[in-house]
Amino acid sequence: MKHKTIYFATGNKDKLREAKLILNKVDVIGKKLNLLELQGEPEEVAEQKARMAFEIIKKPVIAEDTALCFTALKGLPGVYIRHFLDRIGQEGLVKMLEPYKDKSAEAVCCIGYCDGKITKVFKGVVKGKIVEPRAKANFLFGWDPIFEPNGYNKTFSELGGEKHKISHRKKALEELKKFLNK
Amino acid sequence: MKHKTIYFATGNKDKLREAKLILNKVDVIGKKLNLLELQGEPEEVAEQKARMAFEIIKKPVIAEDTALCFTALKGLPGVYIRHFLDRIGQEGLVKMLEPYKDKSAEAVCCIGYCDGKITKVFKGVVKGKIVEPRAKANFLFGWDPIFEPNGYNKTFSELGGEKHKISHRKKALEELKKFLNK
Repeated sequence: MKHKTIYFATGNKDKLREAKLILNKVDVIGKKLNLLELQGEPEEVAEQKARMAFEIIKKPVIAEDTALCFTALKGLPGVYIRHFLDRIGQEGLVKMLEPYKDKSAEAVCCIGYCDGKITKVFKGVVKGKIVEPRAKANFLFGWDPIFEPNGYNKTFSELGGEKHKISHRKKALEELKKFLNK
Repeated sequence: MKHKTIYFATGNKDKLREAKLILNKVDVIGKKLNLLELQGEPEEVAEQKARMAFEIIKKPVIAEDTALCFTALKGLPGVYIRHFLDRIGQEGLVKMLEPYKDKSAEAVCCIGYCDGKITKVFKGVVKGKIVEPRAKANFLFGWDPIFEPNGYNKTFSELGGEKHKISHRKKALEELKKFLNK
């Protein structure tokens, strides 16, 4: 594999560090851009963000979008999860499923890639369920305390640093890595 | 008031007819555009749509966006109402409020206007509450069967054609009319 450089449209240092770690032979440069976020499916949102980022940077670039999809709500709140979390918090999200027996959910990360010629989306999914908040100190991030991945009896928050070995973002980055290594 | 022409970025004939009726001295021309819909507040979404429409048409243009805001959910589903309706239907929307006593909601219409120099948003709000679906034949449109405006014991659907005299869209169009008449 040749040495490659890729831009990552993010202002989030943790996400950048994770990407550098996984795409280890690729030089990943973080670039904070204020990209508009569209309504739609996670794939569409990530793809559109990557296209917009390419229009600005004019170099191979990735952009990511995360969704939390409740089965009982047919995939919603989906990409709108951040708005829901900001407004109604973890408790409010749990309450959305109160009328339903099915608490299952999918954590989805889509990474859009655009280099001006090729536009692709790489997707990582972790299946799990929504639970009452259970958190580990210093790992209170986002909806991590209410998402328990299948096969674990810990939430993403309780898994702490271990989360990154099994996360939806990790999976999407591994898909991207395969593509970049081709 | 001088005779004016305005474009309305919509493919919806009913919305166009309503706009023509209310803005009666203005020549309203419908134009179906596939505008991207952003995430955000109704004002932002409508404003952005109007800007995008102007970029295409290069003539004074309006675009509208509708939101249904549940008080208990701090304004959500908001502009995402269409996605929620498509996915989980009227029953699913009612269920979102099952864990809450407060069933109040606001129907919001924002009309963005852009003529290249001025960009403005006109907002119409109707307060009401979310109820079990009650509908009148031929008025099953969208979430009308589950929204009961305050001061009426009928849902938007049951109000039939009367709805348009009190609707959020009517109110927003009246605001726009004042502006155009200046």
